[in-house]
Amino acid sequence: MKVIKFGGSSLASGEQLKKVFNIVISDSERKIVVVSAPGKRNSDDIKVTDLLIATAERQLRNEKNEELIEEVIARYASIAEELSIPADIITTIREDLLALVHADQSDEKRYIDALKASGEDNNAKLVAAFFQSQGVEAEYVCPKQAGLIVTDEEGYTSVLPESYERLSALRDRKGIVVFPGFFGYTEDGDVLTFSRSGSDITGSILAAAVKADFYENFTDVDAVYSVNPNVVSNPKEIREITYREMRELSYAGFTVLHDEALIPAFRAGIPVNIRNTNNPTAPGTLIVNKRNNTNGPVIGIASDKGFCSIYISKYLMNREVGFGRKMLSILEEYGVAYEHTPSGIDDVTLILRQDQMNAETEEKIVQRLTEELHADEVIVEHNLALIMVVGEGMRHNVGTTARAAKALADAKVNIEMINQGSSEVSMMFAVKGESEDKAVHALYHEFF
Amino acid sequence: MKVIKFGGSSLASGEQLKKVFNIVISDSERKIVVVSAPGKRNSDDIKVTDLLIATAERQLRNEKNEELIEEVIARYASIAEELSIPADIITTIREDLLALVHADQSDEKRYIDALKASGEDNNAKLVAAFFQSQGVEAEYVCPKQAGLIVTDEEGYTSVLPESYERLSALRDRKGIVVFPGFFGYTEDGDVLTFSRSGSDITGSILAAAVKADFYENFTDVDAVYSVNPNVVSNPKEIREITYREMRELSYAGFTVLHDEALIPAFRAGIPVNIRNTNNPTAPGTLIVNKRNNTNGPVIGIASDKGFCSIYISKYLMNREVGFGRKMLSILEEYGVAYEHTPSGIDDVTLILRQDQMNAETEEKIVQRLTEELHADEVIVEHNLALIMVVGEGMRHNVGTTARAAKALADAKVNIEMINQGSSEVSMMFAVKGESEDKAVHALYHEFF
Repeated sequence: MKVIKFGGSSLASGEQLKKVFNIVISDSERKIVVVSAPGKRNSDDIKVTDLLIATAERQLRNEKNEELIEEVIARYASIAEELSIPADIITTIREDLLALVHADQSDEKRYIDALKASGEDNNAKLVAAFFQSQGVEAEYVCPKQAGLIVTDEEGYTSVLPESYERLSALRDRKGIVVFPGFFGYTEDGDVLTFSRSGSDITGSILAAAVKADFYENFTDVDAVYSVNPNVVSNPKEIREITYREMRELSYAGFTVLHDEALIPAFRAGIPVNIRNTNNPTAPGTLIVNKRNNTNGPVIGIASDKGFCSIYISKYLMNREVGFGRKMLSILEEYGVAYEHTPSGIDDVTLILRQDQMNAETEEKIVQRLTEELHADEVIVEHNLALIMVVGEGMRHNVGTTARAAKALADAKVNIEMINQGSSEVSMMFAVKGESEDKAVHALYHEFF
Repeated sequence: MKVIKFGGSSLASGEQLKKVFNIVISDSERKIVVVSAPGKRNSDDIKVTDLLIATAERQLRNEKNEELIEEVIARYASIAEELSIPADIITTIREDLLALVHADQSDEKRYIDALKASGEDNNAKLVAAFFQSQGVEAEYVCPKQAGLIVTDEEGYTSVLPESYERLSALRDRKGIVVFPGFFGYTEDGDVLTFSRSGSDITGSILAAAVKADFYENFTDVDAVYSVNPNVVSNPKEIREITYREMRELSYAGFTVLHDEALIPAFRAGIPVNIRNTNNPTAPGTLIVNKRNNTNGPVIGIASDKGFCSIYISKYLMNREVGFGRKMLSILEEYGVAYEHTPSGIDDVTLILRQDQMNAETEEKIVQRLTEELHADEVIVEHNLALIMVVGEGMRHNVGTTARAAKALADAKVNIEMINQGSSEVSMMFAVKGESEDKAVHALYHEFF
């Protein structure tokens, strides 16, 4: 049995829905279909989710939003028309949407969550109707009925453990289950959404609950690439990758699959297959616990801009028990998360995403670090890029570091910082922002 | 003007004292002489300081210690006899020592400190008497009279800032000042000692106070070597090194000069010259703020055994603000200091000196880290060695990392962890304990 999830671009038009239909019926194991809201049909298009957020916000400000509401309905209607789906489904969607728009607004966050979630919810109804119109046994299933119960955190809710037991019953349903992604219900019956791209999370939860053989995640790329195709043209595709490697890569710019989405599948040991709705014969990328093929120590190279470093030095810092804890407490008071803390003997560098601090916060943090830690020097450097070289094959592979460092040196890229923990699934190099592409190229050509 | 300090081995016998005398009078700038207690005359010998500690401890336990007291006095007496110093100095020393042994023992720590300090104090009196017997104008100066006032911390006291002003008057004394190292007086008039090797600290304080041109630190090696001579034979001597480089090297096994001893000289910008009492014509090593000679990126390679790592992994650890602070708080509760924290995305490794934890503490710490941080995995690895590759020339020197990593790879040494902060004065490699010497050899041959 397979749980199969389709992203917004796979469901943006009638033409796309036909592809989805053909993919689902081509394999009788594909029993549970998780759908996103309709996404962009072209690069200038607006996603239904964004239209819904705008609708909710205008309503809360008592501004006109009728045009937006009609635009949302029109998106479903154009798909229904294109596919000759009986029009009563659009009546259902219209009624649902208007009821949500005019529902209780006393809790603004929950109001927004409910409207956002309707994008997926109504799309699931539409997809089910389409499948039925094609003579296939298919049924929309409401997350509330199915028992997808979540925590009380608007906008970034998480599944409650007891949901898995309830959701496991989906396994026994006859026909195809069409399940809306992105949201669940609190114990009080309110709709709350997962974080953005949360349909991936729903698919992963269902796959874990029904103990699926595979969780297929259909998107619009043939595979996860070993490096960003915008930096290196025609990069090598990754056939098989571990959860851990995927997580390390997705951290630094690989955005194919939402991080949190991997957790339920990872915990249940279910392989995740990233595939392309527009090229369904491509095998895609398989995310697994352990991988077999060994094609060199490195599986992927990711990079991300927008980091800064705070360098703190103090003579004999090393002797002070509690220095690090005090330093991190100051950051924490400002809600600033750090990524790494490479250190010398009497110095330590905090690497963090610089969008967490504006100039004022930065000044305050620097001042407090200087004064409260009695630091000799506190220096902030902006616009760093982090480059992650990732691969399970790097564990105990003598020489990978040397190859990476040499490739960077040959490309005249200065390494600002290095961080390699004992896991050895990844190696981090910090370089100046302007050297990012050069560094990624150099590393790609060394390892691929 | 120069402050010149002699270590215990330079003052262990009459023959050694003659060398000291010749060194001091050979340069009229050498005005302030700081002395340690008599050290070992041969490898089986016992240092006077150790005899004094044993004397104090036995006294506190009401055990017999007359033999020990006589042994201490005999050490001074044999030097006096060898150099034909008038015997009344030994009478003075005996009276002083017996008075201290039978002094108030209500504060045990202060009692021990006072006895320990007498090793230096009485040796300063002896050295002054010897200089006088040679017709040289020289005078023992008591730290109390001179105004060396320290904090209330037994065994690891620090100088109080107001001491510098008072001590600066030493500059105007006629003749040679012979000053005992290792201790000062509290504001209440009690003797307290610096940490072990504290005579280096006294010399550094006096050099800063009198604004000396040089602080000469005479010991028993020709120079600071670029690598441990017990690992690599006949290693290159270091002519000039910065305070910072020295500190990084001394951290990982270079024990020539006490860390804290550098602070006063470093703050006052006074060059420190490490020299050899047994080979006074050798230029030694000069420790300075900025060095001129550029003999390659690396100045020294140090290493130290006895580290362990605690590897902590948790899926999505990276998203948790406060994780690092909580982790360090747990260590701090056990008084355990960490050295470095290299990290991956969802894992972090604590590197620490393993002698801080016994098996029981380790188990508790691992348990608390696991439970309180909800970690997926906590793994301790013992017997690691840290190797520090140090050199100001490494700043922005593209390729140093590559050379170091390649040298280790060629020697088949697996790098367990790497840590390179943005200071780039040092690079740390963690390797398994048994690979330490092989790694040091490989790095030495690459860079020297």
